[in-house]
Amino acid sequence: MLKRYKIVIDTLGSDKGPLEIVKGAKEVLNNYPNVDIVLVGDKNVIESSGIDLSRITIVHAPETVTNYDNPIEAFYIKADVSIFKAIEYAANNETIGMITAGNSGALLVGTIRYLLEDKSVRPCMAAILPNMEGKFTCLVDTGATIDCLPTQLVQFAHLGSKFMKYLYKIDSPKVGLLSNGMEPTKGNKLVKETHLLLKDDPNINFIGNIEGNKTLSGLCDVLVCDGFAGNQVLKNCEGMATNLVTEIIRYGKKTGLMEQTMAIVTHIMKTYDFESLGAGIVLGAKIPVMKCRGSSGEKAIASASHYLINIAENKSLYDGTDERN
Amino acid sequence: MLKRYKIVIDTLGSDKGPLEIVKGAKEVLNNYPNVDIVLVGDKNVIESSGIDLSRITIVHAPETVTNYDNPIEAFYIKADVSIFKAIEYAANNETIGMITAGNSGALLVGTIRYLLEDKSVRPCMAAILPNMEGKFTCLVDTGATIDCLPTQLVQFAHLGSKFMKYLYKIDSPKVGLLSNGMEPTKGNKLVKETHLLLKDDPNINFIGNIEGNKTLSGLCDVLVCDGFAGNQVLKNCEGMATNLVTEIIRYGKKTGLMEQTMAIVTHIMKTYDFESLGAGIVLGAKIPVMKCRGSSGEKAIASASHYLINIAENKSLYDGTDERN
Repeated sequence: MLKRYKIVIDTLGSDKGPLEIVKGAKEVLNNYPNVDIVLVGDKNVIESSGIDLSRITIVHAPETVTNYDNPIEAFYIKADVSIFKAIEYAANNETIGMITAGNSGALLVGTIRYLLEDKSVRPCMAAILPNMEGKFTCLVDTGATIDCLPTQLVQFAHLGSKFMKYLYKIDSPKVGLLSNGMEPTKGNKLVKETHLLLKDDPNINFIGNIEGNKTLSGLCDVLVCDGFAGNQVLKNCEGMATNLVTEIIRYGKKTGLMEQTMAIVTHIMKTYDFESLGAGIVLGAKIPVMKCRGSSGEKAIASASHYLINIAENKSLYDGTDERN
Repeated sequence: MLKRYKIVIDTLGSDKGPLEIVKGAKEVLNNYPNVDIVLVGDKNVIESSGIDLSRITIVHAPETVTNYDNPIEAFYIKADVSIFKAIEYAANNETIGMITAGNSGALLVGTIRYLLEDKSVRPCMAAILPNMEGKFTCLVDTGATIDCLPTQLVQFAHLGSKFMKYLYKIDSPKVGLLSNGMEPTKGNKLVKETHLLLKDDPNINFIGNIEGNKTLSGLCDVLVCDGFAGNQVLKNCEGMATNLVTEIIRYGKKTGLMEQTMAIVTHIMKTYDFESLGAGIVLGAKIPVMKCRGSSGEKAIASASHYLINIAENKSLYDGTDERN
């Protein structure tokens, strides 16, 4: 008999609204008969969504942390915030992980409050991005900590290395530091200081600075930067992919070659599928916490759940059967 | 009779070597019978290159500033550095501008020393990037100043606005601030402080924060950020364009649809032609100074010269006949 798993899903925080998230939960229930789900959010919305309630636990918490809130203040002032209640539930019950499309800052605050693996290590947000070697690069931090200290970047390097080692089965993950030039002398103050620390860390396989045009080249397995720069990398790549796809479609329309261009567009979208690949994962938490982007819908939730189940089953997250190879 | 123009070209600093830069100069001489060129670099190399010397002035300066040098130290210690000699020549003679593929930091130091337009304003490096509206976005700073102050970012906003107003004939250029979220509360310390200054500046048409996935969307005419972030934007966009083109070519090979895919690739490369469009321009200097990337060759030099001639003739740099429209 299959082992039973429980996943906590925060239904609030997506731009597409809670029903889209609940749809994702429905898909997970259909795909995995051994998975139960805890839905956190507005009880009335969830109950009236038509989801089969027999394998669902509802935690009523209809409040959210918006982009205009200070997440730390929100933690102390606001009651019944879904993202905090979801983290609290995940910490106090046996679950294989939680998923949210809510506020990154709030997710960090909640993780530090309830789910910290090691009290001396600041958690970070990782994105697992498809690289040009047909493998994956773990980008840390992607926006949890916007202003970072050099020592925090070193912690992120350790968290990212551990993640790629155990979940992507890479023996000694290569760590790169995002900079504006390959030379050790290049970088802002933060990057220059971090370079010196990483270089001398015997537990990090540091390969040096990586420039912005090589972020997805596959030169390193873990790419370290502060949350501001990481957010730029993530959004720049996504923006540029969107721009090029739009440009290709325009070209197809203009030249009447729609069939051929759409085949290429479909291929590109599959390779750089940001909705399914782009979900972030919090590193440094006791259990895996997935952060889907604000624009997430059904597919993102289903794909994050699939990821959590693979982690729970200790499967390598990279099976070599990538679409691109 | 055509007015005679003089352009200063630094032949050193390109990864492709000085002969490739001299080739660019040859092309300019062929295309523009009214242009004379000052070539700065190794006299022997230039003389033996076979270029017609009748319209060439040679300034012998065989030294370079490498990425391992501190540009300020290099300015005081090294003699006969081509980039500094080129700037000095441009400052002391009647020229319509200078072009270099050399070190950005050295270019900034030389500009501040010889070519400053206003002693109270720090110059910055701008890139003029094709956006999704079929127009151009001026990105400042792209790497001249890596660690910036909020007041410097405001100066960059002014320099960028002036440039887009006079050279791209945009009445009141819209200025955006690169951040990790649209809300004024989003950003690192530098960005949050800069946001408040830009918001209150009556001479800036500030439209707020712009996220990384909207850098080339055309929402703003001038996009402001520090040199570290600007370098990331530039290189991320270039890297992602290269990745997608490579992926499309792989797909073409795999499916046997090479002809159709190459037509698309050619179109994309024309739209996002980083060698001809991606040259940077120093803003805040007395005369236009073009910075071509380190990998620049013949084409980049020819295209930067064309740009300088258009500026000298006070032509709008955007004539509405973009390839993409």
